[in-house]
Amino acid sequence: GYAGGLAGLSAALLRTDSFVGGRWLPAAATFPVQDPASGAALGMVADCGVSEARAAVRAAYEAFCSWKEVSAKERSSLLRKWYNLMIQNKDDLARIITAESGKPLKEAHGEIFYSAFFLEWFSEEARRVYGDIIYTPAKDKRALVLKQPVGVAAVITPWNFPSAMITRKVGAAVAAGCTVVVKPAEDTPFSALALAEILLHHAANSVKRVSMELGGLAPFIVFDSANVDQAVAGALASKFRNTGQTCVCSNRFLVQRGIHDAFVKAFAEAMKKNLHVGNGFEEGTTQGPLINEKAVEKVEKHVNDAVSKGATIVTGGKRHHLGKNFFEPTLLSNVTQDMLCTHEETFGPLAPVIKFDTEEEAIAIANATDVGLAGYFYSQDPAQIWRVAEQLEVGMVGVNEGLISSVECPFGGVKQSGLGREGSKYGIDEYLELKYVCYGGL
Amino acid sequence: GYAGGLAGLSAALLRTDSFVGGRWLPAAATFPVQDPASGAALGMVADCGVSEARAAVRAAYEAFCSWKEVSAKERSSLLRKWYNLMIQNKDDLARIITAESGKPLKEAHGEIFYSAFFLEWFSEEARRVYGDIIYTPAKDKRALVLKQPVGVAAVITPWNFPSAMITRKVGAAVAAGCTVVVKPAEDTPFSALALAEILLHHAANSVKRVSMELGGLAPFIVFDSANVDQAVAGALASKFRNTGQTCVCSNRFLVQRGIHDAFVKAFAEAMKKNLHVGNGFEEGTTQGPLINEKAVEKVEKHVNDAVSKGATIVTGGKRHHLGKNFFEPTLLSNVTQDMLCTHEETFGPLAPVIKFDTEEEAIAIANATDVGLAGYFYSQDPAQIWRVAEQLEVGMVGVNEGLISSVECPFGGVKQSGLGREGSKYGIDEYLELKYVCYGGL
Amino acid sequence: GYAGGLAGLSAALLRTDSFVGGRWLPAAATFPVQDPASGAALGMVADCGVSEARAAVRAAYEAFCSWKEVSAKERSSLLRKWYNLMIQNKDDLARIITAESGKPLKEAHGEIFYSAFFLEWFSEEARRVYGDIIYTPAKDKRALVLKQPVGVAAVITPWNFPSAMITRKVGAAVAAGCTVVVKPAEDTPFSALALAEILLHHAANSVKRVSMELGGLAPFIVFDSANVDQAVAGALASKFRNTGQTCVCSNRFLVQRGIHDAFVKAFAEAMKKNLHVGNGFEEGTTQGPLINEKAVEKVEKHVNDAVSKGATIVTGGKRHHLGKNFFEPTLLSNVTQDMLCTHEETFGPLAPVIKFDTEEEAIAIANATDVGLAGYFYSQDPAQIWRVAEQLEVGMVGVNEGLISSVECPFGGVKQSGLGREGSKYGIDEYLELKYVCYGGL
Amino acid sequence: GYAGGLAGLSAALLRTDSFVGGRWLPAAATFPVQDPASGAALGMVADCGVSEARAAVRAAYEAFCSWKEVSAKERSSLLRKWYNLMIQNKDDLARIITAESGKPLKEAHGEIFYSAFFLEWFSEEARRVYGDIIYTPAKDKRALVLKQPVGVAAVITPWNFPSAMITRKVGAAVAAGCTVVVKPAEDTPFSALALAEILLHHAANSVKRVSMELGGLAPFIVFDSANVDQAVAGALASKFRNTGQTCVCSNRFLVQRGIHDAFVKAFAEAMKKNLHVGNGFEEGTTQGPLINEKAVEKVEKHVNDAVSKGATIVTGGKRHHLGKNFFEPTLLSNVTQDMLCTHEETFGPLAPVIKFDTEEEAIAIANATDVGLAGYFYSQDPAQIWRVAEQLEVGMVGVNEGLISSVECPFGGVKQSGLGREGSKYGIDEYLELKYVCYGGL
Repeated sequence: GYAGGLAGLSAALLRTDSFVGGRWLPAAATFPVQDPASGAALGMVADCGVSEARAAVRAAYEAFCSWKEVSAKERSSLLRKWYNLMIQNKDDLARIITAESGKPLKEAHGEIFYSAFFLEWFSEEARRVYGDIIYTPAKDKRALVLKQPVGVAAVITPWNFPSAMITRKVGAAVAAGCTVVVKPAEDTPFSALALAEILLHHAANSVKRVSMELGGLAPFIVFDSANVDQAVAGALASKFRNTGQTCVCSNRFLVQRGIHDAFVKAFAEAMKKNLHVGNGFEEGTTQGPLINEKAVEKVEKHVNDAVSKGATIVTGGKRHHLGKNFFEPTLLSNVTQDMLCTHEETFGPLAPVIKFDTEEEAIAIANATDVGLAGYFYSQDPAQIWRVAEQLEVGMVGVNEGLISSVECPFGGVKQSGLGREGSKYGIDEYLELKYVCYGGL
Repeated sequence: GYAGGLAGLSAALLRTDSFVGGRWLPAAATFPVQDPASGAALGMVADCGVSEARAAVRAAYEAFCSWKEVSAKERSSLLRKWYNLMIQNKDDLARIITAESGKPLKEAHGEIFYSAFFLEWFSEEARRVYGDIIYTPAKDKRALVLKQPVGVAAVITPWNFPSAMITRKVGAAVAAGCTVVVKPAEDTPFSALALAEILLHHAANSVKRVSMELGGLAPFIVFDSANVDQAVAGALASKFRNTGQTCVCSNRFLVQRGIHDAFVKAFAEAMKKNLHVGNGFEEGTTQGPLINEKAVEKVEKHVNDAVSKGATIVTGGKRHHLGKNFFEPTLLSNVTQDMLCTHEETFGPLAPVIKFDTEEEAIAIANATDVGLAGYFYSQDPAQIWRVAEQLEVGMVGVNEGLISSVECPFGGVKQSGLGREGSKYGIDEYLELKYVCYGGL
Repeated sequence: GYAGGLAGLSAALLRTDSFVGGRWLPAAATFPVQDPASGAALGMVADCGVSEARAAVRAAYEAFCSWKEVSAKERSSLLRKWYNLMIQNKDDLARIITAESGKPLKEAHGEIFYSAFFLEWFSEEARRVYGDIIYTPAKDKRALVLKQPVGVAAVITPWNFPSAMITRKVGAAVAAGCTVVVKPAEDTPFSALALAEILLHHAANSVKRVSMELGGLAPFIVFDSANVDQAVAGALASKFRNTGQTCVCSNRFLVQRGIHDAFVKAFAEAMKKNLHVGNGFEEGTTQGPLINEKAVEKVEKHVNDAVSKGATIVTGGKRHHLGKNFFEPTLLSNVTQDMLCTHEETFGPLAPVIKFDTEEEAIAIANATDVGLAGYFYSQDPAQIWRVAEQLEVGMVGVNEGLISSVECPFGGVKQSGLGREGSKYGIDEYLELKYVCYGGL
Repeated sequence: GYAGGLAGLSAALLRTDSFVGGRWLPAAATFPVQDPASGAALGMVADCGVSEARAAVRAAYEAFCSWKEVSAKERSSLLRKWYNLMIQNKDDLARIITAESGKPLKEAHGEIFYSAFFLEWFSEEARRVYGDIIYTPAKDKRALVLKQPVGVAAVITPWNFPSAMITRKVGAAVAAGCTVVVKPAEDTPFSALALAEILLHHAANSVKRVSMELGGLAPFIVFDSANVDQAVAGALASKFRNTGQTCVCSNRFLVQRGIHDAFVKAFAEAMKKNLHVGNGFEEGTTQGPLINEKAVEKVEKHVNDAVSKGATIVTGGKRHHLGKNFFEPTLLSNVTQDMLCTHEETFGPLAPVIKFDTEEEAIAIANATDVGLAGYFYSQDPAQIWRVAEQLEVGMVGVNEGLISSVECPFGGVKQSGLGREGSKYGIDEYLELKYVCYGGL
């Protein structure tokens, strides 16, 4: 059991000051952080303003002047030590995530591994930045391309993965030879501060606060040829992870006429059987609270709007009795494209199903948006698989698969969702400059 | 000889309308273009506004929907045909450049080859975009990374290389499978329109107008160990190409005390012997007019400011008698860092020399700016060569070399000059999206 | 029509001497070459012995000493000129192939394009050999990796693609900066000599004779889920191209029980309808003669052996009345693994079908050989496609596809068939050495 | 102090049986191993014959069938565990090297780190094997390139680096998904067996015996512009590491006339001051015994031959009083190319100096051999540095540097020394097959 609030959390890792130039510094003001499941206060955290931000950037720049001289092997070693420490402290770090984000503890544990794996990955990538030698037409010159760190990186992270979104960026930046100023989400600063605490004896770093937003409207398409059981399993995984609060969660289900009724029926049954709403610290909970009441209101508004325009509630549909931040896992059918839930990101446990007839129609609906992070589809037709994978206007495609993130693979979107790629062999490029050296006089 | 104005230019290539969706379209308004050497009128060119821009983007998007389906081999073939046509029309295209930009005809010929070489290069790059297969920990999934074109590219180009700056961007975009909307500089639209005319029978394209600026303050450092003759040759090439109007022209000369006097003396003599001011169409001219009178005024202001603060005119220093757009090639010594010419880009035939004592001092002066496109230095000390090349905060370094551009090598800068890289194997990346496909259910 | 022998062939391209150091040289002896369809004499060709071979290597080495200094751009230009000349002479070159190999003229035309495309491809690859800069732990050293040509390459080519097998190797070698000594097959030397004639005014090269052999036993698997029409089309293309005389021709058909009878029936019908035996110069011919009578005897032996052990002739089965080098396209069913045709390469128009029950069984049969060049399979099950593609022990896999060669893709095998890869971005590596330069004292 | 023989060695790591399929197995026969410094017996080791070899290959193949299915991440983890265990046991492992090879303990410690770093490097490389997606002209096909392990690797290693030569090969093979049969040198089997012991609880492996040899004649060139002190330091490091018994040891010193006398004088003084002959376990020893008396006889023969043809002994020149396996560090001047020591690898503490006049002459002498592993040169002239680095016909070049090995960099030679590359991002390629999958029917 869990008493709520600070009980059961590691005091050593629960820091409230800002972390600048390798030291903990208080700020002029503070702001409160709460447990979204119980509403219990978790602490007052340094509320850094403009002057603290400037100091953090200054400290990061000074650190950069020496850090950039450190060899790739040494940067690699530092990141590995940090990775080892995360693994050693994994239970404490997971409990902090659940406390400040409401995420079920099992998912929080998963996030800590995923988060630590980015440090491991970039520890290895640090040593694999290669420059080029280019053979040009000029016989009296030689052309080299060096790779050098860009400088200080400003890193702003969201609340839904309070730990992994930091290591995915900071790991790459540090591997490249950059230093960073990090601003975690104000709902979930403790995971960030715990990471800094862990790093304390190994590097100079700086923590600061700001804000960011990255949207998606991921389509989940089920074609007639799909395997229904496989599609339902993928739908559950893709829609309801973190109570529907990930940027790659399916936001719109498009189901072909021939398989529609079978899929909706099986999906509703699976939701009832597998989804358990509760406090994230309780054994068996799969659906924790939403991050705050505003988030609940948005889901409610999407449901009401859809129903008022003709949608049918198959299961769920209203707030959950457990508390103000909880909502029932909800499945809607008869959804049409004029409903809010098909063109705004719900970011909660709502699965709206649109029926379609042809492949072209499904692709047109899926692409009719100016964002494009992830997309999923289920089909057993090999040629259709290639066609649809190539035509979906998104940065990541799940084919017969609902969980696609992997540190080895490039994470990112196209259209308005498109700003570089993270993780993978591409993730470090964002933090590197090319320097072309033309060596003449030969 | 050359009579000025339109005489001697190819009427077939001298287009004045805008080129949209494969057709020549007039605009509601027009604007005049002049020969900067003689002031003669060259023509009235379509002055496209908001509605023309929208139509161009729409046409480009429609073209994209089919162009992206074209195979890499076919995109390659189209670019090679365009390249062949440029080479066939090279004399006419070079004359258009000299007429509208004032550039000596020999340099204009050089630009046409440089420009065409980008089409050849990207013709070959088009077939060499490779996706990845990534081996992840999940045994029941396979991870693919596809590379796909981003869509319509908006391309804005400057007047100092009226042809090459277009092919360097458009070549890459078309190779990637994108379509483009191009806005050439208003001083030099004819070269762009001639390129479109040449392409007419081979692709759908769109020409439109906007504006852009990219600055540099390239340092040119001469260390005591340098070979003076080599350094002077590099200084001439780097400073006075296109009458000092390239973004990689040396803007500041830093010369170490031990070699200073010898270098300044030899540089002044070389300038007198090798630089010939005149109309670009005349045989033997190496220094044409500046692009317009405003450009002359800026050079004059930089010289006057420097002299008023203690600089010495070694040679040149005033407007040239040939006409209002001409200025004498000028060498200043005793220059200090408080003078305008050391922290603003002159973009004209002015070479200011700062004397320094130590390597650290030279690097500090060179890096004391928020731009960083190119930098040059001369040294015969192998260890110093690595040290300085690595520490200069620029995107391109010439070591004992004043001319560094090559289609095979990445062109671009760091700091405020830094926005991706053009040319080389990296240039096409700007126009490609990665799409990660997670193939599951295996 | 075609009169046989030399009639209709380009006298200018029909060379009989050896080509060494850029000049045509007679040899002490000669040997005769015949048209395999008519038996007509085509000419007496230089029969080079040990002393001629030594002279050729010496000339190639001398050429290498200057060729390795030539820039990548120039090597690229030479290869492109050669490519252009091949395209200009394509009809004459194709007729020479048909005359000396018996291949239908349409296939010969296809080969000339395929052959020329290697010159185009490696013309472009020549400029894309990149060295590396490696970041090591040592702060006082820099590590570079240069790429340099290996030297003189000895190239030995078979008779079944008299032109393309030469350009695939020589194109890569020349692109890398190597020079070559080529020994074409003695059945088909004229295509090689014509390539040299075409190159004559553009480079120094050397032609010499030797011998080589590369086997395959390509399985062609049809699973129950396959589309029969697609599989039959692939079977025809894969089995009967060049009258079954390519190293990637299917040698063994494995067909799953559920689809077996439908496939065999449709395959037999398609063979009767689409395969036309005749002289390669005649319009409509798809099946020319085999290369010589020994080849016919091998097919005959495989058929007789199979029938004696219980196989059923579905269609064909004996020599063709057109002449001693012709054999009927033949389909056998009830084939078992103890028959010769399942473990020796037939290299002729014989398709033996083995029936199987499970996927594991099919893979076991397919892999039960010590060669592994190509393999094909037809299936509409996405997971099966990945499984089988990964488990087949071959270097190239056709999935629902019978024709797989493409200059962009790596050609080569595993097990006893495995010796590097040709074509593609990998093909040039065989001709390059890495040179690691550790630049110290910094 | 060290008592000789087994005293002070870890009994747990001192295995004498063969290691097959994860178990220790005795062989029918055994052979003795001795300490080369004291001659003391170290043990009787399994002398595996043909039947043991066959069993080892069979066990390795069976292990391969499951190991190839293991994910890259798991292979990575295994290698890292092995690396960690080596670091934990580094003192015991180093003592075994010194005992069986005579190498000074400090060098043995260095080797253990170098050896372990290969396991770390390939642990990381295992996850970075990427396949390709190739864009071909065919619109109805997709081309993939998979990377798969080749199978069982047979690994044969020399005695001069009893540990590192194993991990450099086995690390790459295991990372690729291969299994291995290892045959260590018969002079130094204990280090190999200790590595297997350490691995015992973590993988299935096999140890077997065979033989191999890889020669070099590394030139060490000192040009007039060189820094003498730097060159002498490099000469000491390059020539006398492991008492001259590494395949990258300088074998021939070429010194330009202008710097010759100063270099020889300084080199002789540095040898006397820095080189201390002794038992490898004694503090301060830098020059241990040679591996056996045959090795001493070769050095003696080279010295006598040189002196008989006119060479001058500057220092050293005879056997050392410490024992039959010891020889004095020796410097010869007035060496000419007709002497044995300039065209046979001495593999001992002999430095012969040839005087030369021009750069061309030095390169000609350096390249006048059919082997080409490493080469070194000292120069302060930047253009000469590029020229000579490019012209030396070797696989590895030290520029102003005598120690060049690094796990990140490709190790290997050209000419007769040339068989692939080890270490670096290239090292794993030797153990991978490409499989091109043409996915059609789309």
